[in-house]
Amino acid sequence: MDLNEEALRVHKQHNGKLETIPKAKLTDGHDLSVLYTPGVAEPCRKIKDDKDLSFEYTCRGNMVAVVTDGTRVLGLGNIGPEAGLPVMEGKAVLYKVFGDVDAVPICLDTSDKEKFIETVRYLQPNFAGINLEDIESPKCYDIEDALIEKMDIPVFHDDQHGTAIACGAAMLGALRLVKKDIADVRIVANGAGAAGTAIVRLLLSLGAKHITMINSKGMMYEGMDMSRINRVQAELLKRTNLEKRKGSLADAARGADVLLGVSQANVFTPEIIRSMNKDAIVLAMANPNPETTYAAGKEAGARVVGTGRSDAPNQVNNVLVFPGIFRGAIDVRAHRINEEMKRAATHAIADLIPDSELREDYIIPGAFDPNVAPAVAAAVAKAAMDTGVARIKVDPEEVRRHTAERTKRLRELMPKILQ
Amino acid sequence: MDLNEEALRVHKQHNGKLETIPKAKLTDGHDLSVLYTPGVAEPCRKIKDDKDLSFEYTCRGNMVAVVTDGTRVLGLGNIGPEAGLPVMEGKAVLYKVFGDVDAVPICLDTSDKEKFIETVRYLQPNFAGINLEDIESPKCYDIEDALIEKMDIPVFHDDQHGTAIACGAAMLGALRLVKKDIADVRIVANGAGAAGTAIVRLLLSLGAKHITMINSKGMMYEGMDMSRINRVQAELLKRTNLEKRKGSLADAARGADVLLGVSQANVFTPEIIRSMNKDAIVLAMANPNPETTYAAGKEAGARVVGTGRSDAPNQVNNVLVFPGIFRGAIDVRAHRINEEMKRAATHAIADLIPDSELREDYIIPGAFDPNVAPAVAAAVAKAAMDTGVARIKVDPEEVRRHTAERTKRLRELMPKILQ
Repeated sequence: MDLNEEALRVHKQHNGKLETIPKAKLTDGHDLSVLYTPGVAEPCRKIKDDKDLSFEYTCRGNMVAVVTDGTRVLGLGNIGPEAGLPVMEGKAVLYKVFGDVDAVPICLDTSDKEKFIETVRYLQPNFAGINLEDIESPKCYDIEDALIEKMDIPVFHDDQHGTAIACGAAMLGALRLVKKDIADVRIVANGAGAAGTAIVRLLLSLGAKHITMINSKGMMYEGMDMSRINRVQAELLKRTNLEKRKGSLADAARGADVLLGVSQANVFTPEIIRSMNKDAIVLAMANPNPETTYAAGKEAGARVVGTGRSDAPNQVNNVLVFPGIFRGAIDVRAHRINEEMKRAATHAIADLIPDSELREDYIIPGAFDPNVAPAVAAAVAKAAMDTGVARIKVDPEEVRRHTAERTKRLRELMPKILQ
Repeated sequence: MDLNEEALRVHKQHNGKLETIPKAKLTDGHDLSVLYTPGVAEPCRKIKDDKDLSFEYTCRGNMVAVVTDGTRVLGLGNIGPEAGLPVMEGKAVLYKVFGDVDAVPICLDTSDKEKFIETVRYLQPNFAGINLEDIESPKCYDIEDALIEKMDIPVFHDDQHGTAIACGAAMLGALRLVKKDIADVRIVANGAGAAGTAIVRLLLSLGAKHITMINSKGMMYEGMDMSRINRVQAELLKRTNLEKRKGSLADAARGADVLLGVSQANVFTPEIIRSMNKDAIVLAMANPNPETTYAAGKEAGARVVGTGRSDAPNQVNNVLVFPGIFRGAIDVRAHRINEEMKRAATHAIADLIPDSELREDYIIPGAFDPNVAPAVAAAVAKAAMDTGVARIKVDPEEVRRHTAERTKRLRELMPKILQ
């Protein structure tokens, strides 16, 4: 069966992909009096005196909202909130399966920036974190900044930071394989949207010194026509392409060590890849069709090729990131997800593959590797505590262990539920 | 163990009461490509062309929001959105267990009426219905009216209509037992808040002709000091206490056939009950402590006594109502829940007890009677289709059958999940 047909069939068969289920027994009048009136009044009273107890006595402590306005869904563009729902719901499912994080899709019927911000803020009492998703750029930057400022729970735009961390982890793995240092390599980032700018920002934070961003007009440089760039790009231009080179993607790629794409299908031609430095690393992350296929990239001489696709090696997929990031942030009841936590997540993913197992076709763990979310969660929890954004203290090893246990429980439970 | 202690322990043990679970298998890369990218793009495209398909291809079709601002939670008053969460979450659990309706608690961090309305409206794409809960009066009237006007899915303030329907069903059962006609009996309704006014409105719609409302100052009548009454009360005064009697609760109850309370503990004294007509019916619904206990009411000579308590016969509990109401409304994808649907739900509950089984201590089905939600859902679905508010047509018997099957599946599934 065609994948599209199968997707429609599965989505319709179950009436979507997500359901809500009680976590406590409710089979008699006594249960009712404990879970509902009059017993429920007691946790209400406790929370009234200390709002933070809502993280302990309610589902809030394990609940994330996946929020969009539907203005930039996948590669489909501005398709509206209803049409964005299958993606947000899918993401909620991934949160649960990979991180035992409960999540609900929230597609807001407003594309007004201020209304969006205000609405998400009003939703705060219900959630331990906010995953922003599929919001058009540059609005997504303002929304994320404003919500981080106004809210006391983590706000994380996954299209930016999830993608950046997955890309960063793949790059760290690939650089370790080819024995190059991140501070020395020449990196070309094609695509300067939300994902592209977040990747550049993270790589700078990981120690990269020589990055050039490319947009549809070619190499970007400080001093270029400001009407073509947004404030986030302008900020990054102060720290990239310091030689202020001008020219095309092909010009930039010549002699480069790393070529990253979050742009469009097939723009990394064999000629471009062939022109790169020895041991070239190509991470072609456009979805669903990458800037080069794995096979074509290797054929053109790249040492390492990664794409977003599950049907080729080295899948750069942010499912490696967001479940563990939020698992760790939630477990320490973090106020926010800061740069240190993002770097910790990046290293945690990359470090899961020891030197002895690194291969050209295995620079990043697979999406279903059960060790990823526990490792990310533990590293993120530790970084949160180390940087003072955690409300409570936990043992990172305990976070790792119980993330592993909880996701294992789910893997065992699901067949019973789906019977 | 003390009930309060037990409630705290259970709420903390599970970190709340509700989790989200996938409805489809997700164990390998192929599943990922069907439930998430790239497969998920196909339902997105379909919904973009026809928003109503969001009810079929996503969890929206079975999902209700339980929304509050925390301004009037149980008898605790204005305790804020975080502290209201245990109640909303509990209600979400009841929706699932009794009606297989998925539900999420939404406690909004604003008590501004207009902001509340706007926020709920923005949430519309995610839900098949909105259950308003625990919002102070008279704000709750304006919010419900505005949202019914602005939204294209059912909006139902359960404190009003759920309570009214449960009360109406109990009254119909009791009247059948004592062989009195609703059009003839004298009814006294003590408490003119959200629940009280909704009860009066429903009883009028069911054919009651002689109702007197009581507030803290005594009998209410048209022409009384307008500064003491809200617009909903004013409207009802045109149709109640037509003789414009004045006096106390005790004055009103003398000779009355039915005494309803949604007020406060112990105000139905033995003297008041003793002064009622033969075959007196007393429905004392204050929570957690009723206007009279079952035993005291019977002792004082009432033929039928009902309370909100699970530890006495004739529990008048809106858990009999909201799961089935929304199950039926959702199954026909109703635009709204109108008066006909509310009346249908009332009769459906009352009619579950045949004449031969009616007893003084069995005028309304028990909360865990598995036939209630299926009967209510079928009746509500039929009424919705008959009155033109259904988007799709279904066989009411099919609604009854599959509600019974779905809730049975849950009862069997829960022990496996809770192991």
